[in-house]
Amino acid sequence: MARPSLREQLLVAGLDSFHRRGFNGTSVQDITDAAGAPKGSFYNHFVSKEALAAEAVRKYVELRRSVHRDLLRDTKLKPLRRLRRYFESLNQAAAKAAFSSGCLLGNFGAEVSGYNPLISKRLGEAFAGWTDAVAAVIREGQKAGEISRDFSPAELAAFTIHAWEGALLRAKVAKNSAPLDLFVDVTFDKILA
Amino acid sequence: MARPSLREQLLVAGLDSFHRRGFNGTSVQDITDAAGAPKGSFYNHFVSKEALAAEAVRKYVELRRSVHRDLLRDTKLKPLRRLRRYFESLNQAAAKAAFSSGCLLGNFGAEVSGYNPLISKRLGEAFAGWTDAVAAVIREGQKAGEISRDFSPAELAAFTIHAWEGALLRAKVAKNSAPLDLFVDVTFDKILA
Repeated sequence: MARPSLREQLLVAGLDSFHRRGFNGTSVQDITDAAGAPKGSFYNHFVSKEALAAEAVRKYVELRRSVHRDLLRDTKLKPLRRLRRYFESLNQAAAKAAFSSGCLLGNFGAEVSGYNPLISKRLGEAFAGWTDAVAAVIREGQKAGEISRDFSPAELAAFTIHAWEGALLRAKVAKNSAPLDLFVDVTFDKILA
Repeated sequence: MARPSLREQLLVAGLDSFHRRGFNGTSVQDITDAAGAPKGSFYNHFVSKEALAAEAVRKYVELRRSVHRDLLRDTKLKPLRRLRRYFESLNQAAAKAAFSSGCLLGNFGAEVSGYNPLISKRLGEAFAGWTDAVAAVIREGQKAGEISRDFSPAELAAFTIHAWEGALLRAKVAKNSAPLDLFVDVTFDKILA
């Protein structure tokens, strides 16, 4: 396998630090130190920490898609079972991180979307793509009669994703899985039912 | 009215800046500048920025209680109507802030609860008190037959609060009320029904 470029190493190191410590909790030097690169080299590859953060949002979505989102396309499972497995897979990843990292989209949304238009824009795109992917499975489930049609697929997908983000945030504060377990129970009993 | 003490002025200035810019986006100097106080005076009143932030969580809960939470005790209204008015009041406050501040509990939860035990502890207390207050009204609603009993009051309250936090976070990214409007529609149609 080819050695990743310095640009890619900086991007991955930045994503990791942003995910654990937030945007303002991460300095350019933290990123270059983690990538084992001289500080000055950063600006050969990114115009600013903000530019790297915006790209880290895309990278995060790409990595998470390869780990979790493909579960949504596993048509061997019925739509409702597939959705449940998808959210359980997200919850297992949160548990593996001891509930301490949270979701980069939620973290950046809470920390910087109030005043940073570029990062907000990338977050908006990431949430929209995620909502579409979940909505597609809900649509299948509605057609199959597994999921009630009192709200549209897009509405149910958005509500469910927001409820998951809030539950993950609460799990991060509590350092336990109870909020995420409750999310699955209520969602599959009352929302997607 | 007595002039607030410098300590109180620092606390209010800190709360305001933390709410808008986050923990790591706020410096001690930002706080003393906003309070019109010399930087050195900060440490006469707080041992650290972290100590002020932990106290700001309590102050935030106290202020929000006086603005919104009393609606939960307005027994002139039936429980379900009261809960709806309460969440609509929170949503109106979010709209008034142009969706840009979010909730201090959610913001700190996302930004610093992963690695800051003191702030996490205060956030845990704040979420627990909030959940209790909402659960009390849900319990009344269940007794009155307005709300289904398939989950306990504490479970329904926790799920609802998490879903609201996630919707507010999404509204902050989108800069519009759609996620919060959807929260009310789905919650009162499918969760608290």
